[in-house]
Parts: sequence; C-alpha cells; structure tokens
Amino acid sequence: MGNTIGKLFCVTSFGESHGPCIGVVLDGCPAGLPLTEEDIQHEVDKRRPDPTAGGTGRREEDRVRIISGILNGYTTGAPLCMIVSNEDINSHPYEDTRFLPRPGHADYAAHIKYGGFNDFRGGGRFSGRVTAGFVMAGAVASKLLFGIGVKVIAHTVQIDNIQAAECSPLEITDKIWENPVRCADPETAIKMIKKIEEIKNKGDSLGGIVEAIAIDVPAGLGEPVFDTLEGDLAKAFFAIPAVKGVEFGAGFKAAAMRGSENNDRYITKNGKIVTATNNAGGISGGISNGMPITARVAFKPTPSISRRQRTIDLRNLTETEITVKGRHDACIVPRAVPVVEAMMAIILCDFAMRARLIKEVIS
Amino acid sequence: MGNTIGKLFCVTSFGESHGPCIGVVLDGCPAGLPLTEEDIQHEVDKRRPDPTAGGTGRREEDRVRIISGILNGYTTGAPLCMIVSNEDINSHPYEDTRFLPRPGHADYAAHIKYGGFNDFRGGGRFSGRVTAGFVMAGAVASKLLFGIGVKVIAHTVQIDNIQAAECSPLEITDKIWENPVRCADPETAIKMIKKIEEIKNKGDSLGGIVEAIAIDVPAGLGEPVFDTLEGDLAKAFFAIPAVKGVEFGAGFKAAAMRGSENNDRYITKNGKIVTATNNAGGISGGISNGMPITARVAFKPTPSISRRQRTIDLRNLTETEITVKGRHDACIVPRAVPVVEAMMAIILCDFAMRARLIKEVIS
Amino acid sequence: MGNTIGKLFCVTSFGESHGPCIGVVLDGCPAGLPLTEEDIQHEVDKRRPDPTAGGTGRREEDRVRIISGILNGYTTGAPLCMIVSNEDINSHPYEDTRFLPRPGHADYAAHIKYGGFNDFRGGGRFSGRVTAGFVMAGAVASKLLFGIGVKVIAHTVQIDNIQAAECSPLEITDKIWENPVRCADPETAIKMIKKIEEIKNKGDSLGGIVEAIAIDVPAGLGEPVFDTLEGDLAKAFFAIPAVKGVEFGAGFKAAAMRGSENNDRYITKNGKIVTATNNAGGISGGISNGMPITARVAFKPTPSISRRQRTIDLRNLTETEITVKGRHDACIVPRAVPVVEAMMAIILCDFAMRARLIKEVIS
Amino acid sequence: MGNTIGKLFCVTSFGESHGPCIGVVLDGCPAGLPLTEEDIQHEVDKRRPDPTAGGTGRREEDRVRIISGILNGYTTGAPLCMIVSNEDINSHPYEDTRFLPRPGHADYAAHIKYGGFNDFRGGGRFSGRVTAGFVMAGAVASKLLFGIGVKVIAHTVQIDNIQAAECSPLEITDKIWENPVRCADPETAIKMIKKIEEIKNKGDSLGGIVEAIAIDVPAGLGEPVFDTLEGDLAKAFFAIPAVKGVEFGAGFKAAAMRGSENNDRYITKNGKIVTATNNAGGISGGISNGMPITARVAFKPTPSISRRQRTIDLRNLTETEITVKGRHDACIVPRAVPVVEAMMAIILCDFAMRARLIKEVIS
Repeated sequence: MGNTIGKLFCVTSFGESHGPCIGVVLDGCPAGLPLTEEDIQHEVDKRRPDPTAGGTGRREEDRVRIISGILNGYTTGAPLCMIVSNEDINSHPYEDTRFLPRPGHADYAAHIKYGGFNDFRGGGRFSGRVTAGFVMAGAVASKLLFGIGVKVIAHTVQIDNIQAAECSPLEITDKIWENPVRCADPETAIKMIKKIEEIKNKGDSLGGIVEAIAIDVPAGLGEPVFDTLEGDLAKAFFAIPAVKGVEFGAGFKAAAMRGSENNDRYITKNGKIVTATNNAGGISGGISNGMPITARVAFKPTPSISRRQRTIDLRNLTETEITVKGRHDACIVPRAVPVVEAMMAIILCDFAMRARLIKEVIS
Repeated sequence: MGNTIGKLFCVTSFGESHGPCIGVVLDGCPAGLPLTEEDIQHEVDKRRPDPTAGGTGRREEDRVRIISGILNGYTTGAPLCMIVSNEDINSHPYEDTRFLPRPGHADYAAHIKYGGFNDFRGGGRFSGRVTAGFVMAGAVASKLLFGIGVKVIAHTVQIDNIQAAECSPLEITDKIWENPVRCADPETAIKMIKKIEEIKNKGDSLGGIVEAIAIDVPAGLGEPVFDTLEGDLAKAFFAIPAVKGVEFGAGFKAAAMRGSENNDRYITKNGKIVTATNNAGGISGGISNGMPITARVAFKPTPSISRRQRTIDLRNLTETEITVKGRHDACIVPRAVPVVEAMMAIILCDFAMRARLIKEVIS
Repeated sequence: MGNTIGKLFCVTSFGESHGPCIGVVLDGCPAGLPLTEEDIQHEVDKRRPDPTAGGTGRREEDRVRIISGILNGYTTGAPLCMIVSNEDINSHPYEDTRFLPRPGHADYAAHIKYGGFNDFRGGGRFSGRVTAGFVMAGAVASKLLFGIGVKVIAHTVQIDNIQAAECSPLEITDKIWENPVRCADPETAIKMIKKIEEIKNKGDSLGGIVEAIAIDVPAGLGEPVFDTLEGDLAKAFFAIPAVKGVEFGAGFKAAAMRGSENNDRYITKNGKIVTATNNAGGISGGISNGMPITARVAFKPTPSISRRQRTIDLRNLTETEITVKGRHDACIVPRAVPVVEAMMAIILCDFAMRARLIKEVIS
Repeated sequence: MGNTIGKLFCVTSFGESHGPCIGVVLDGCPAGLPLTEEDIQHEVDKRRPDPTAGGTGRREEDRVRIISGILNGYTTGAPLCMIVSNEDINSHPYEDTRFLPRPGHADYAAHIKYGGFNDFRGGGRFSGRVTAGFVMAGAVASKLLFGIGVKVIAHTVQIDNIQAAECSPLEITDKIWENPVRCADPETAIKMIKKIEEIKNKGDSLGGIVEAIAIDVPAGLGEPVFDTLEGDLAKAFFAIPAVKGVEFGAGFKAAAMRGSENNDRYITKNGKIVTATNNAGGISGGISNGMPITARVAFKPTPSISRRQRTIDLRNLTETEITVKGRHDACIVPRAVPVVEAMMAIILCDFAMRARLIKEVIS
C-alpha cells in the first residue's frame, strides 16, 4: 500500500521500470476539462533524457495513452488511467547482481521488506521511471490550476556546488528550455553542463537542488494542523527518488536568522496585502498567504555510478564488489525538474479542491 | 479538516491556545498496553518552558487527563482521548490587535481562510501550545515502539549559527536534560544560552535546528511510492509551528556530494548487514534500511518579538505598527525538542503497525 | 482504529458507557456557522429515554459541552470537540458477569478481539450511549444542511410486527414528538406502546424499523463507484448498535418486482424533472437524483433481557446461566430515531461538501 | 473521486463500458503470493453471461492482463494493475438516446452531476461491466483469505418471488455451477430459469437476492464503531449496480423477533465457543464472532427492458418515449453472484490485514 496520494485529487501510481508499463490512475478530476493525449504527452516529453546533460542511454518514445475517463476530448468525471509503455528494456544486467545490493539504491531495503520478491529489474518500483506517472497526473493538475490562474514552475538552482543566480519567474519560464540542465541562468548552465560531463567521465555522479515556485496562488490553501501546505508538498516531493531534503522560503537559512529579519512585513501593493519579503515562501501556519510559494528540493547524486563499489552478497553475507551496469544519468536533477513541478501542481490542485476553488464540473 | 494524521495509529488534534483545553484523540492503540496519566505527564512536562532558556512566562500545570480508552491501567483498544486544560490565559492583549496581523505569524492567512472567524486569541490553532497534544500521542507511540526495541531521541543541534559537535545517541540521552537548551554538547549549550539571553534582551528572537534519531529501527518500514518514511516524517514535522525545512541523512549537503562519496557502502558487522556511512539517514527508497534514522528539522526564529513591527490594519488596509504583547519564547527550539521526538515516534509507530510489527493486542 | 467517518466532514468518536464521558471530534465544519451548546443540546435531548416507551432507568442530564472550535458563538474552522459526561454510572452489576458473555451482545467478540482488555462495563464502546456523540455531530450537520435547504427526518415505521401507515414528511415532522415511540401514525403508536409494555413485562424485548427521509436534496450527491450514497449511508447506519439491515427505496421488495414496475418514470412537475414513483429512494447509480432519499434501517430486539439465558464462562469454557442486570430499554427503536437522523445528516453533509455545495466559510 | 475502497487492501477501479478497457489497481497485496493471469481469469469467467439464464448478447473474451506488480509468478509487493479489454462494443444505439434518460438507470443523476460530460455509452461507469474489475481484485483477496483458512461463497437465494430452500455451504459450493442461475437448490433453479425466460419474452426483467457466506472466519475482524464488518461489507455491496438492500443474519426479520428468540445462545462445540443459532450472521458489535458471516444482498430488476417507457428529453424538458436498445440481461442476479462473493472477499481481506492476520510477505 502507500501508492495513492491526494484527498480529493487522488493519484494512484503503478508500474515498474521493466514491467509492461508505467501508469497512474487519477480520481477526482472534474468532468468537462478539455484533455487530449497530446496535452499529457507535452509534459511527459519534458522528462526525457538529454544526452548533453548526462542523460541515460535508455531510448523510449513514452507514448502516452489515456485508457479511461475521457470522451470526445473532455474528462467525464470518471477516473483517468494513463499509461506509457516500457519499450527499451534490457533486464539482463540486473539478473547478475540480483543479490548484490547497489550502494545508494533501495535494493537492500526492498529485499528485506518484500522478502526478496520485489521486482529488482532496473530498480523496479524504485526507478526514476515511475515518475513518468507523476508527470502525467501533474499535467492534468496544471490544466486545472491554470483555470484558476495558478502557475507552477520549477528550475535547477544548484548542481554539485554550482549555484544559479536568482531569477524572476518570467526569466525561469523563458530560459530553462534553452539548456539541457533546466537552469534559468545561462552562464551557470554552461558551468553545470561542463561539470556533469567532467564527473561522468570519471565514472561518478552529481546531485543538486530544484526550486519550484507557484505564482498567483490565492491565500487560504492548506488544512492545518496536519495537512499543511508545507507538509503535503514535502511528502509529495519525497516520493521522487533521490530527494533527501525539502525547505520552504528561507528554509534552513531561517534557523540562523533573527525574528526581526525573518518576519515578512505586511505592506499594500496595488491595494492588495502582500509581504515586503518572502522568507515564509508564501506559507504561514501551513496556509498559503498569497505570496509566491517557493520550495527547494535537494537531490542526492545518482547512486548508479560506473566505478566499482563494495557491497555484500545477500546469499552468503560475504563482502564483494559490484559494477553497476544498466543505463543511468550522471545527474538526475535536470530530468527531475518537470517532476518537482508536477508534484507541486498535484498538491496545490488537491488543496484548491479542498478549498472549493475548483468546481465539480469545468465548463 | 486536516487535523488527523496516521493510517493505523491515527492522531486527531483539537483545542486552541485560549480555549478550554488542548486535546488529542488517538485511535489505533492496541489493547493491553499499560498506560497511566503519569506516563503521559512525564513527556508533557518536557515541553514546559524553562525561563533560563528564554521560555515563555505562561505558567500552567498542564495536568494530563485521559478521558477515554483505559481501564484498570491498560488500554482497551478504544480511542484514547487525552487533554490538558488551558489555565493561565489572558486573552486581553489579543483583542487590541485582532485586525493587525503579526508579521511571521499565521494571523493573516488564517483570517483570509476562515473569513475572520478563526480564534485569534494567542494564535488559536496556530499556537505552539497545540503541540502538547502531539506530545501526548507521542508518549503512547514511544511506549509501543519501546515494546519492539525502537528508541527515538531528539536534541538541539543548532541555535542561531551556533552548531553543536556531533554526539552519540548515548551522549544525547544522557546530556540533553542537563541544560535548558537540550543540547548534548555542554560547551555549546552554554554559548546557546548566552546567545538567547543576549537576543532576548534586544527584543529579538532566534531559530535553530533539532535533530531526531531513531535507533534499532528494523529494516522494512515505509510504504513507497507515496507513503515513504521521509515523506510521512516530513509531513508530521511540518505540523510543528515554525518548521521551514526537513532533511534526512546528509540532506541538503548531499546535493553537493559525488555519488562515490554519498553512496553508503554495505558491510557486515556482528553478522548483520550495515552501511559503513549513513548518508541515507537510515532510509533507502523511502524504506528503513536498518541504520539509525536521522532527520534534521529547521525552525525559523520565533515570530513574536517585542520590537515594534510594521503591518497592515485589515479593516482599512492602511499601514500601521504593532507591538506584539502576550508571552513568548525568545527561542522555541529547546521546547520543540520533545515535540520533534513525538512526531517521529508517531510516524514510526504507524509504519511499524502497517508492517505488522506491533501486535493487535499487547500483553 | 475505525473510529472516524467522513472524508471532508470528519467525525471521530470516543468515550465509553462507564468512562468519564462520551465525545466526538468534528473536523471539517466550515468557519462562520452560528453554533451554541443549546443547538446541540436540543438534539441530544431527543435521544433521552422515555419511561413510557420502555426506556432505560439510567438518568443523566447529558449536558453538552463544546470544548474546542467555537468563538463568540461561531465555529472557527478548527475541530469541534463536544462531550457529555457520564454521570449515573453503576458498574457493579457488570463485574460479576465480566467473563459471562451476554447473548446478543458484543461481549464475546470484543473479548476475543481485545484480548480481554476491552472496557466491559455497561457494554463499553458497544453501548448505545456512544450514539450521543453521533447525535452531537449530526446536530452540526443538520445546521449545515439547513443552509442549503436540505432537511432530514426519521421516524419509527415498525415495532415488532406492527407497521405504521405511510405518512407525508410534513406529518412525520409534526407528529413524531407527540408520542414516545416516535411514530407519525398516532393509532399505530398506541399499539406499539402497548406491545412494548406487554413484552417488557414478560422480561423480553422488541426490535423494529426506522425510516429516514431527506427532502430537497439536490441531484448529484454521491461519488461512485465505491463512495455511493447508499454505501456510505449504510456504513453509517451500521455503526448504530443493533442495526442488522439497511435498504433504500423499494429495497428488498424490489427483488420481487418487475423492471416495468420498479423503474421510476421521468416526468416534469413545475418545470422540474422528477420521477412519478420513487422506488429508487432518491438514489440512482449511487448518486442523488433530486427525489427524496428514503432509507429503512432494521433494528434487532434489545439483547439485554431480564430473563435468564444460557451462556459460557470464558474462564473455564463451561456452560452456565446469566441474568443480565443493569438498565436497558425493552425497545431501543424510539431512541434510535434521532440517531438514524443524525447519521443521515452527517453523510449527506459530507457529500454536499464533496460536491462543493457547502462553502468553506459560512456567513 | 470515490473510486478506491479498502484501507490496507486498496482497490481502485477505472474504465467504462465502452472505453478501451475495464481495470483495477490493487495496492496492498503482500509480496510473495503466487499469482497468474489464469488465477484471475478463472474468477472473471464466472461472471460471463449465460444465454440460458437471460444473459446479455454481448460476447467478449474478457482476457485478463496483469500489467504491473508480478514477477516470475509471484506478487512483488507493488500495486497490481489488472485489465480486461472492451471488445464487442457498439455505441451506436446510445447516441440516439443520449438526452433521453432511461428509467431505472443512472443516466439522469449522472447527467446532472457531471454536467452532461459523463460517458453515456452503455451506461459508462454505471455499467455492470465495471464489476469485472471488482472480480479481478476479489480473486486476489480470495487467494489471500485461503491462506488463512477463510472461504467465501455466494449463491442465488431468490429470483422474483421464487425462494431457494436453505442449503449447507458444501451444497452451495457443489451445486451452483450446475445451473445457470447459480442456485444451490436444483428444483428451485429450474423454476427460476423458467420464470426468467417467461419474463424476458414479455420484454420485462427480474430482480432477486444473493446470499454470501464466509466460513471459518476468525473472531475479531472489524473495527468499530464506524468501520464495522457490516458497515464496510454493506458499502462494498452497494457499489454493485442495482443493489438496493443489504442485511446480515436475521436482517430485516430480526425487527419482528423477540430478544429471547433473536439472541444467539453461546455453547461449546468441540471445545470451541460457538452460538446455537446464527441470527447475528457471525457479527456482534461490528466484529466477527467466529460463526459464519452471512449477508443477503437485494437486487432490483434490470432497468433495461425492451418495452417502451416514458421519459423526458433533457434538451427541451418535454415528455417522450424511449425504447432501450443495446444488450442486457433480463435478470442480472446470476451474474452478480461472483461479484457479491468478490466484494465480501475484498472487505474480509482488508479487515484480516488490519487485524494483522495476513502477513506482510507471503511465503
């Protein structure tokens, strides 16, 4: 269990890396939303590997199919089931190392939890490929949010220790598709690309940070004390493989700030109440306050590296070595950008429904 | 809605700062657990303010009452309802500033969300006082975890920019009750206390970081892809007022590490598989891997400061000033330590139940 | 677990027959609803025992206290916790028979499930007294439904084999408080009262049927395929002790009807689409169709009878006899009428919220 | 929303009558269960129409495909997605009557709820065809229950007013596949078949009652006060199209019984506590008591009849007539037998997991 998220906009994930397909059931999308496979395809294409940014060699068309819930180009109010087939599969490399847990991967924990029955091929359920389903659901969420004027954008703000300069939402939207690392700051992007190339050649890998921003979010989303906006967003982000930290607004930096410095002063702007700064990341008391919602999501370096690593043979508990085969990205961060965006859209959509901001029938 | 957390070990929070009481209903505690009000009291007492660490002036006995679910000193399998009364209440200072949202507080967001009907007295539902309920539930969780050999500890690792040296779990358990800042490193504790005093005198406030560690957690807890251990822990931590960031293991630092450095190598130790390092914070693929679970929770500085601050009068949208009255901690971090511990215990208990590690009847 | 019902209007029950109190936490009530303890009291008073209808000797004031979630006579959007104290308790009779499960009661099943730790005094969690909490939550639901023009009424339609004639909603509302059996048909009421008296004197007990009707329910409530209006209503009704059957519209009678006879023909009435008959009980495909929702709930006879009954001593598995002491109603049906009404109101309120028909803030 | 049922054994339904497929995602099946498509196929085949019992003309192979969650013949602990394609589709007859709601069907309620966007072809989500998904999930549940010694059986006990004689579980298992109406009493079966034929020729349809029995269910399943065994079973049964009533044990008959008659006396049998009668239907206080669980589910007559019926044209609110085309069963009851069985298996499996009776890994 544990494969469903959302209270009113309910996303159920299924499928594994080397099974027939990756899929998602989306229950709770209102009837009457115009929706085509192309709408979804457009978002799914964004998470394709880009070889110039250390992308995996796996080549798949990832053709989206909506197999339930639409009629004549509109959602019907019934659950949407969307799938992409797994095509370019080669499970052979994984057979050899079935009992040699790859360091940094979920292999060992999954082996224990599922008694060795887990699908180990290509990481199975723990593969980044599962996020294709998240992106399909996120595409629907984004369309619904668009209807209430909310826009979610994500971008790469750090790879290794290379940090991007701050950019406006507009710059982000404009620039991130111009380079393969999805960084809004072109000069930094070049450094990042170079660094990825360098580290990849060394048989190693890199991590980084993705920032997501939601703009024009009305104040009042979030259901404290437990279903806070931060809490549910964080939970969704941690469903993305390799995420190890999540912060909002000033985040960890706030720990070393003074109250007088961190408190966002209220002012009026064009007759609307806003805050002069946004250290809260648009969330106060777990509820949106009308300012942009900003989250930062930390990704550890890709655990699959081509260097030999020490591990244990689970069959006899002896120490041994493993060389991780299969295809993998030297840095997953750029491909995670649309996934982080999708998760934020899903959660905001769920909360917008809980706040009755999205109608039962769109038309 | 949004005031219940947990799937099998379900915690429902109620009560507000200046209402009759703070309470919690705990549904899912197995029958047959020995439990007294003193057991709960012992934990609740830990979050009392300590005046030597900038604690609030509010003085309450916080006498725990269990009003359902026990018989003859044992849980019955029925929901436990536990309350502490609110006694030392003075709502007067809040009436004056009802329409002046305090910067850094939830006042404004809550005012919008609840149409001005929210209980504004002392922060209402957004008060740190609500966490007394979390601690009551956490006390039961800790008892259940103790029964399967799991122990959760939390301690202050940073206040302002003062960071504690690394300590062993044993040191933490031993030392944190020896100083009012709950820091296991005595020398750092002294510096922290001094800093709090200094900043308090300036009418300002401080934030910090609490670390929680769960030891002897069996591998296999967590229900990916959405109900990951990280995700559900993070969601629980973000229910604590003032939390703005959560990370596990190497956390945000992992973003700048290489795969070869971050990957935790498997080794055997006393015939058991462990990892040589614990950058994963005991969680791989959202599932516990048998290593200590380590989480770090960032708290922003207390928003209530005695300095005058600029804000907006909600009645006429004019800019004005506010002086926050009421009683408040200059640094909430030490008092948050038992709360962070409680949240981790609650979530681990829930996952231990989902993994059938805690029996339906304890005896 | 299992003590919370509702998705957006979430009712959590706690308390037991001989504990300190019976209570309920209601999470999801919008802010801004005018609400006083008297509003709730008025409904709770309806389930008081009436000695002229075989009511229990237990005498309690059942004074309602709202201990969270209101301010200045309005709901705040925070969880409402409402309790009534248990006052007239005499647990002594139950000590003697702790290990002698009373036939027809939950004693044996509960003993097995909770390993003997269940609160056996007065039936504990399985006592009809727990429904006081349901009625408190139902009172709030009814107020919210009133705001969207929906009214729920319930009445006794059968006791033993005595069936009431069909009555209009108006008659029901008018008449049921005129007699202690809550039957809208005065002549039948007299027969029912007489029958209860007769059977009570024989040391025996009676069952019956309660009908609930919701009028002016807008079409479109219900979330099939699983969260159907019938399914969620039935689930709620089965939470009332002694319920053994639930049907909607023609119900079990429909099993022997022909399609041509059972199908409700669509007609127009005052420019509105209605059906000429209402065999569907206002629900088609799990969704309200705009006609009155009609449900019938079957209650078994009160298991507590004063006659001696054979049972087993759980300590030594030998057959023995038991004489059930304590106080009990010879027929629970009249007192169940407000409870059935409450359950229907709770579920309709939840579905009205899911359909966005009840706003986030009432004002 | 509303398309997921189960707390630990979570079944999510998708697909519509004339869409590409009918499917189900099953989340929570333990790893290590041997499972093949043939296991599922065997159960799905049971709900095929039988022309000798008034079955629909629609002819589909209903070939089951498991598209996630298994590896080498065992479940992996990941969600199982199972589908059957819709092949023999002819949507043409439905286009003509899109705006003419068929009496007895969900057309009108769905039209209102989904703003006319619902998939009206063949009833869309409201078609009995959706139950193919329930049966696929039920097949897995039955395998898991088999592992703990529990067996669920269902049979037709009434069609029109023809009632079957009481039969033992053994007789039921033996006999129901010998006749197309799934009645364990051969003589009654003949009468039922004849009646169906007769009514079908008149262009009309019939209802009936299915009984489900679970044997060797351990005492202790059920989570009152809200998640009672009766309540969750009833909710699941009401998800089956055409169900209008559910009762347990003596059910509605209990309303006219005396306590002395209805109370099930405890006795010992082979050293085990049982009850001499089973009016409770194996459920006391919402919890299984160790006796067979018996439920009766009432089906209204098939709403699709070939006679002309009066209805309203939704476009202009004028009265008109409709002749329902498409293919339909004159009596759905026999085909509902495996569906009722599946729903009971799903719910019992969920409760067995909640009571920790089914392990996290089967092996």
